[in-house]
Amino acid sequence: DPTIEPLIVKAFSGKLIIPSFKEFKKLVEEVFEDVRDCKDGKAADYIPQLARVDPDLWGLSVCTVDGQRFNLGDFEKIYTIQSTSKPFTYAMALDLYGSDYVQEYVSAEPSGEGFNEICLDDNNKPHNPMINAGAIVTSSLVKPELNLADRFEYMMNIFRKLSGGTYVGFNNSVYLSEKSVADRNFALGYYMKENDCFPKGSCLKTILEFYFQLCSIETKCSAHCIMAGTLANGGVCPITGEEVLDDVSVQHTLSLMLSCGMYDYSGQFAYKIGLPAKSGVSGSILVVIPNVMAICLYSPRLDKLGNSSRGLLFMEKLLKKVNLHQFDSDNNAAKIDP
Amino acid sequence: DPTIEPLIVKAFSGKLIIPSFKEFKKLVEEVFEDVRDCKDGKAADYIPQLARVDPDLWGLSVCTVDGQRFNLGDFEKIYTIQSTSKPFTYAMALDLYGSDYVQEYVSAEPSGEGFNEICLDDNNKPHNPMINAGAIVTSSLVKPELNLADRFEYMMNIFRKLSGGTYVGFNNSVYLSEKSVADRNFALGYYMKENDCFPKGSCLKTILEFYFQLCSIETKCSAHCIMAGTLANGGVCPITGEEVLDDVSVQHTLSLMLSCGMYDYSGQFAYKIGLPAKSGVSGSILVVIPNVMAICLYSPRLDKLGNSSRGLLFMEKLLKKVNLHQFDSDNNAAKIDP
Amino acid sequence: DPTIEPLIVKAFSGKLIIPSFKEFKKLVEEVFEDVRDCKDGKAADYIPQLARVDPDLWGLSVCTVDGQRFNLGDFEKIYTIQSTSKPFTYAMALDLYGSDYVQEYVSAEPSGEGFNEICLDDNNKPHNPMINAGAIVTSSLVKPELNLADRFEYMMNIFRKLSGGTYVGFNNSVYLSEKSVADRNFALGYYMKENDCFPKGSCLKTILEFYFQLCSIETKCSAHCIMAGTLANGGVCPITGEEVLDDVSVQHTLSLMLSCGMYDYSGQFAYKIGLPAKSGVSGSILVVIPNVMAICLYSPRLDKLGNSSRGLLFMEKLLKKVNLHQFDSDNNAAKIDP
Amino acid sequence: DPTIEPLIVKAFSGKLIIPSFKEFKKLVEEVFEDVRDCKDGKAADYIPQLARVDPDLWGLSVCTVDGQRFNLGDFEKIYTIQSTSKPFTYAMALDLYGSDYVQEYVSAEPSGEGFNEICLDDNNKPHNPMINAGAIVTSSLVKPELNLADRFEYMMNIFRKLSGGTYVGFNNSVYLSEKSVADRNFALGYYMKENDCFPKGSCLKTILEFYFQLCSIETKCSAHCIMAGTLANGGVCPITGEEVLDDVSVQHTLSLMLSCGMYDYSGQFAYKIGLPAKSGVSGSILVVIPNVMAICLYSPRLDKLGNSSRGLLFMEKLLKKVNLHQFDSDNNAAKIDP
Repeated sequence: DPTIEPLIVKAFSGKLIIPSFKEFKKLVEEVFEDVRDCKDGKAADYIPQLARVDPDLWGLSVCTVDGQRFNLGDFEKIYTIQSTSKPFTYAMALDLYGSDYVQEYVSAEPSGEGFNEICLDDNNKPHNPMINAGAIVTSSLVKPELNLADRFEYMMNIFRKLSGGTYVGFNNSVYLSEKSVADRNFALGYYMKENDCFPKGSCLKTILEFYFQLCSIETKCSAHCIMAGTLANGGVCPITGEEVLDDVSVQHTLSLMLSCGMYDYSGQFAYKIGLPAKSGVSGSILVVIPNVMAICLYSPRLDKLGNSSRGLLFMEKLLKKVNLHQFDSDNNAAKIDP
Repeated sequence: DPTIEPLIVKAFSGKLIIPSFKEFKKLVEEVFEDVRDCKDGKAADYIPQLARVDPDLWGLSVCTVDGQRFNLGDFEKIYTIQSTSKPFTYAMALDLYGSDYVQEYVSAEPSGEGFNEICLDDNNKPHNPMINAGAIVTSSLVKPELNLADRFEYMMNIFRKLSGGTYVGFNNSVYLSEKSVADRNFALGYYMKENDCFPKGSCLKTILEFYFQLCSIETKCSAHCIMAGTLANGGVCPITGEEVLDDVSVQHTLSLMLSCGMYDYSGQFAYKIGLPAKSGVSGSILVVIPNVMAICLYSPRLDKLGNSSRGLLFMEKLLKKVNLHQFDSDNNAAKIDP
Repeated sequence: DPTIEPLIVKAFSGKLIIPSFKEFKKLVEEVFEDVRDCKDGKAADYIPQLARVDPDLWGLSVCTVDGQRFNLGDFEKIYTIQSTSKPFTYAMALDLYGSDYVQEYVSAEPSGEGFNEICLDDNNKPHNPMINAGAIVTSSLVKPELNLADRFEYMMNIFRKLSGGTYVGFNNSVYLSEKSVADRNFALGYYMKENDCFPKGSCLKTILEFYFQLCSIETKCSAHCIMAGTLANGGVCPITGEEVLDDVSVQHTLSLMLSCGMYDYSGQFAYKIGLPAKSGVSGSILVVIPNVMAICLYSPRLDKLGNSSRGLLFMEKLLKKVNLHQFDSDNNAAKIDP
Repeated sequence: DPTIEPLIVKAFSGKLIIPSFKEFKKLVEEVFEDVRDCKDGKAADYIPQLARVDPDLWGLSVCTVDGQRFNLGDFEKIYTIQSTSKPFTYAMALDLYGSDYVQEYVSAEPSGEGFNEICLDDNNKPHNPMINAGAIVTSSLVKPELNLADRFEYMMNIFRKLSGGTYVGFNNSVYLSEKSVADRNFALGYYMKENDCFPKGSCLKTILEFYFQLCSIETKCSAHCIMAGTLANGGVCPITGEEVLDDVSVQHTLSLMLSCGMYDYSGQFAYKIGLPAKSGVSGSILVVIPNVMAICLYSPRLDKLGNSSRGLLFMEKLLKKVNLHQFDSDNNAAKIDP
């Protein structure tokens, strides 16, 4: 089991990040059950593959930076990662080409607009890589010299490493459906092509197919959470110890997850929860507590802004009990500090 | 000296937040001198009081949450706090009335617009309290039952406590000048009045006068820095130990300083520097490293977005040497961790 | 009676513009009665003086360029001219200072925005003089060297001449009410002051008071219609023969009434009715058939875009029977050509 | 010669629309020569076929509603009709399906935005048929049940009738080039497809190809002018007497040419010239004087807003001498009334 070694080393040396892990787990379980009867919102149904999913599914996984893990509920159910691919694609692009190059193509500002708005900033660049425009351009930057098969394989390999070798697959039905309802993204793509948003020589059709493929990667809560745990751990996979991403790439990615990761709720999420996160239309939310752990939530019903309703409720209730907000004061004795 | 006791207690108990304070200070001094020859930008000149200031002034103060302090350069020069009043006013409003009430009037989202734009969000509320619209509304919330003299006195008392009893004054010439060139803020004010942005019974003229007065409070680097240090310390003044603001009020305020504190550069600042901050048109920048310390920079030349050019350069150079970004990985051994 | 002479001259010389005036009148009477039971919409109630008006009032006046006139229904009821002052103020400004000067301050493009939107065009000028921003600036141009009393008297004299010496008054209650609910116009005013939209030395408060006074001029259908008839007649009052406005000023004014005179319905009105017109919040609509005649309609219930519902319905029904659209083909034999 | 008969009939009956046609022609010739040395602006060069055209070409044609014609300069040079196809396509759609049906898909308001802006009005419809969005949707309405070859043939037949059987052709090179640089129009198309702007069952690719083909129809000044003359004559071709379009369709089309036909200069053109017109990127401008005549101007250099510079200058100079503005007063004796 690739996860064991680093964890054991730390456990024996008495340096576990969350010493009271048992207590923390109990608390998470309580909140997990507490929000189970939240049936607010509606699962996405713009493609049949999403419409068919059982909306009551409810899974959760935790993975600390030193590899401690636990899973609850439907953590083995497979779903497509959708928009949660965006921060990883961005981190990979930063890793390959550096922040200066990537910022020539994608800015790093909240847009003040919807996630799929057809708009660019004052320099004719997408506002950030967490909205569709920015994610499509980011996709175009990664390994453009390879053919589409090799580009996709290249990314899959990194996703596999991010997840510590646990489950990462591809849902071709979702891919084909996404591609068939992609009017808005084609509009965005042609608009950006006209504004020279892509590297010279890019083929728009290929870029969009690549982008839809990245959205159609599938995984499950327990594996998805390890990917986020790798972000929490500065790019080093917490269960294999492999350095998958550079820590500077991860730092920049976390900054943008904090400001732009939860669609139009990003500002409120940063205000209330204060943690880098990214949600996807399948109903998953990745939450990163830097240098501590990651939490992955999966519940398909979405609120009006596109975030999992039960997932959000879980985070709000958890934060009332645990000291996780980035700006929680050390003076705050009322809460548990994990 | 009110600053001594808590610091001494901690120093003797061996629990100082920055054990290598001496090393950190040396590093700050180096960067301070390194950027001194940066003469980029232009001091504000829209009122004569600002236009007359020596643009070469360069001051810096540091204040840790356990009260360790040091000051460099022109740290005794008096200036008006201008927009750096905004986070404090917001924190005071939160303290008095709670986040739910305050959010009924002011949202917590980046606006994607200029700081003085005449626009409200979809609920007809200002986007956040760090832009003029939001700051004007926030001002209207604080102690509306008092007359203007008592309201101002109430605020001054808190500013004095935030600064640990060091210098806070009022510049009447600046106030009168600000009021005389306030077309945009009057436009904003009437627009918000029409949209019922203010509590019932508010008098717009009084609100704007109050707002201009808060901008015309004057202080100096060393005192200003203690105010920010109080934010770094969860609302407890680091040199007096007095709890001036509730830690939840401070947490919310820091969230918005991170996402919206540096005008249109806020996204880039969060990306590169990753710390809550607020700048003002006088040329000051407050930077908060939560639970660690605050830095106050003062240099009047502003870049095109309205932030002190030399102040920004200082932060960028400092961050290359010290591990301060909120999302710096603990794995990053190349930098000093203060 | 000042109206008699020119009409008699023309009548005797057999050169009346509408030879079948009797037939035309009969047709108008039919449509007038036909739409009487239209009770759509709601009278303005943002000030008590408007809220108190009987919403069932229904008046109509016609005035040909050779002075033939007739009146129906409540044509003697007094109401304030409100926004129908805008084209006249604009024509007066053109008359005094010429189109080049006036266009330095007010553009001549449809705005694509609401009538009271706080926005300027790319040159920081109001889009046109038929929206509030443009009308306020236009007001500021007229006789700025006079004191407010004399400026108002100057305008009143022209309004009196436009109406051929029939009734023009002033409603001080409406003026005081308008001034007291003018947040949006004050917001607009300060915004434009900041953008240097007014001639140097202008006092915003005076300009706005002047503007509200022009909106508070009162008249009645029969007199209001003669004012519009003067526009139909190239600036020459059809009942006195006095040249009140230059024909070039009138031509420019009619162009903007056609493109911008009916609030957000202007495009549809130009499309369906094809005639220069201007409506006001009291419920009046002035329609100009250049070189032929003017029609004034008065019915207080407004549709959602702010135009008199019954007035609009009347015009639509009339146009189905009479050949009045500017682009009606001479080949169209099915309609009467008045 | 198909043009002769109706003209002769009228000439013999002494009812010619412009009795002093000889005098008018002389005046036009003077202005035509007067503006010949205007070399302002730059010919379109976004496709090689346009870039290669001699920018000094200067042609003019006049066609009265009773078939009197004359031509000057390069009136025989062939060019593509480009955006001047828009009003004709719109008129054909109105003719086939009526204004109510067509307005379900395309509104009739100036947009306040650029001609190729990616935006729809509040009802998710293009603002008007004179901008690209509206013209693309209008194209989709015409004979959707036919295959592309038959649809195009259907349109060509009407264009031939509009021109009285004079020259109308197709430039396949321009078509292929237009299609290859069409990113913006594809962006627009996909955006509108997503917003259900097209009739059910429409194929976007086919619609856009059809639209580009309509833009690539070619003609020459003398023939182009007869098409516009048919609009001036209420839909009846002035040289054949054939009723090609219904007069109501023409009336609506002229309304929109007046308000929206000259790109972002439409407002100014309506203000100064006051006549329905449409310009195209090849450098042609069609001007319609309803019930009187049409003028076609051809000069490839365009100003910044996309209208032929020399063409505009010609119209301004002509209007100073002749009484053509729709709102010219009959009282204006200083000008010639043709």
